[in-house]
Amino acid sequence: MRTEICDRLGIEFPIFAFTHCRDVAAAVSNAGGIGVLGAVGFTAEQLEVELAWLDEHVTGVYGVDLVIPSKYEGKGVEGLSPEELEAKLAEMVPQGHRDFAEKLLNDHNVPHLPDDEQVNQLLGWTATTVAPQIEVILKHPKAKLVANALGTPPDDVIKQIQDSGRLIGALCGSVKHALKHKEAGLDFVVCQGTEGGGHCGEVSSMVLWPQVIDAIGDLPLLAAGGIGNGRQVAAAMAMGAAGAWTGSIWLTVEEANVPPAQMQSYIEASSHDTVRSRAWTGKPARMLKNDWTEAWEAPENPKPLPMPLQMMVAIDGVKRGHRYPEQAKDVNFNPVGQVVGMMNKVERSADVVARLIQEYVDACERLNKLNDAL
Amino acid sequence: MRTEICDRLGIEFPIFAFTHCRDVAAAVSNAGGIGVLGAVGFTAEQLEVELAWLDEHVTGVYGVDLVIPSKYEGKGVEGLSPEELEAKLAEMVPQGHRDFAEKLLNDHNVPHLPDDEQVNQLLGWTATTVAPQIEVILKHPKAKLVANALGTPPDDVIKQIQDSGRLIGALCGSVKHALKHKEAGLDFVVCQGTEGGGHCGEVSSMVLWPQVIDAIGDLPLLAAGGIGNGRQVAAAMAMGAAGAWTGSIWLTVEEANVPPAQMQSYIEASSHDTVRSRAWTGKPARMLKNDWTEAWEAPENPKPLPMPLQMMVAIDGVKRGHRYPEQAKDVNFNPVGQVVGMMNKVERSADVVARLIQEYVDACERLNKLNDAL
Repeated sequence: MRTEICDRLGIEFPIFAFTHCRDVAAAVSNAGGIGVLGAVGFTAEQLEVELAWLDEHVTGVYGVDLVIPSKYEGKGVEGLSPEELEAKLAEMVPQGHRDFAEKLLNDHNVPHLPDDEQVNQLLGWTATTVAPQIEVILKHPKAKLVANALGTPPDDVIKQIQDSGRLIGALCGSVKHALKHKEAGLDFVVCQGTEGGGHCGEVSSMVLWPQVIDAIGDLPLLAAGGIGNGRQVAAAMAMGAAGAWTGSIWLTVEEANVPPAQMQSYIEASSHDTVRSRAWTGKPARMLKNDWTEAWEAPENPKPLPMPLQMMVAIDGVKRGHRYPEQAKDVNFNPVGQVVGMMNKVERSADVVARLIQEYVDACERLNKLNDAL
Repeated sequence: MRTEICDRLGIEFPIFAFTHCRDVAAAVSNAGGIGVLGAVGFTAEQLEVELAWLDEHVTGVYGVDLVIPSKYEGKGVEGLSPEELEAKLAEMVPQGHRDFAEKLLNDHNVPHLPDDEQVNQLLGWTATTVAPQIEVILKHPKAKLVANALGTPPDDVIKQIQDSGRLIGALCGSVKHALKHKEAGLDFVVCQGTEGGGHCGEVSSMVLWPQVIDAIGDLPLLAAGGIGNGRQVAAAMAMGAAGAWTGSIWLTVEEANVPPAQMQSYIEASSHDTVRSRAWTGKPARMLKNDWTEAWEAPENPKPLPMPLQMMVAIDGVKRGHRYPEQAKDVNFNPVGQVVGMMNKVERSADVVARLIQEYVDACERLNKLNDAL
């Protein structure tokens, strides 16, 4: 299953593991795949700490995932510092939305954060706030891969990353977006079907991947959305993918810094328990259905705001949910794909990688056996 | 790619083609797959004509697809003739719904049917109206396979079909339904992901198929939802499917009795142009998004009724759309899956079968090449 992108990165298996947890990223990289750390929740200073830790614990390479949305409120406002942009955007959030979110959390008895824990509302959700993150990445040679969620990265970012000898790619949920990525000169696309966790489009992996593969020609496609075992990896590779981009399955590994109560929610959920909702980030993302997602759907309630304003409303809920996961059980932010129905036990990250490979091999053998019988 | 179910049916390839058109069914059966005729739109008398034609034109075997929903309004009412049941159900349809449908069609200048074309409102949408269809099927030895949409068929139907030496299976969109099918003793399940055309659940093929395969063990799973080329067939088989159940792609073949204007709608549509809606049959089904589907979604308008009442409201629109497809372009019933984005030209049915096989072989070879490089 070794593909060209493995050679370019110097990894053994084209198994890409998106995670917000450095321990998981390191474990996957050290098991022959590549861990990709989601940077959106970190300030530049925090990201520096994470990457320094990864440098120390990863023998080969790892990746970093950024969020530079193509479209968001406040885009194109020049010359503001991250703090000034945050202040300006904060003024655009209706008080009614903040009150509604606050009431939802209070009605569920989710405690407030201690007063000394100030929440940074914007984090890495805009080009302005991502720029310092990129500076950090460039200081870490093992950070060999950069992926961008939510659109083609700006030309100067692409150039900066590629000139440094790194690969840069971006996520997409449609042929149109994939072609935009190709035109911009990206090194790969991560093509995610609607069943995927977090931000996703409307078209399923089975239908989307082959169309994008045909459209982008030689550019490597990493298949995302719905992959939780090696049979699905084999399916993706049979259709022409250059690798498998996984995310959800790393939420229930031993090393994940997911609170036990939240991990339990994932373990118990079936594939029917997710919803594609704008209720947390302002753009459609897949997550577990719960009282929070239902509340923002109800016709009589406020509607989710555009990105990043909704996240500025919701970030307090994210933080309180992370800190008090038991109380927040029914209003927590639980981004995950439909593959959650296959996540039924806690495994070690290295064991997941080994399992994916073994299941992949078994699937290929099954196929060959069928064909021998032809 | 020959699987056990091929041997049981006496077919060469496990390519199952669901279609409402006998010409397509015959062409697929004669090309080595098996055509499965959707019976829901036919009275028993009409079905007899279709199957007699198929007997004459198919060298091997074909299948018939029925609709016996597990749940529908009027279920369990004993001792009524089809005509009496229809009259009883007709009383349950609010006049406001009929008026709304009529206005929608008139606003789009879709002509009325000639007065002498009486529309049978219920057709094969209930157990009562399906019973005469089953009698017809049993008279045709080449009708070797029966599939039921929308639930496990009643025990007596299963026994009747199996005792006659035929195979009977049913569609499912969840593990729960698949297990119910298995428990009832069906010979196979057709497992359809949310991307599929017509009635479908919420979980995507990539995530659903492997879970159902694991749940049902030895029972053959025919993979449905999203399959339009042989790479997708290979993906399904790699995951453990016993065959590929296709539907949408037969809407744009040369032999299809789909009016040219409607076929053009399918050819032009992208994978982003479908919606899962209750607006035609009363149960969620995937179809092209248009003014009709939007109108039944708008908060201020009547809501779709449960099956089969909504179909009794909509059947006039189905018939008028079929007869006047150009005028009905924006309010026609266009059931199709997301794979519609891959349906970009009109092909002969036999060529589609040959293409699926060739693409399947190519995909398997690609996979083997990758593995040789390991």
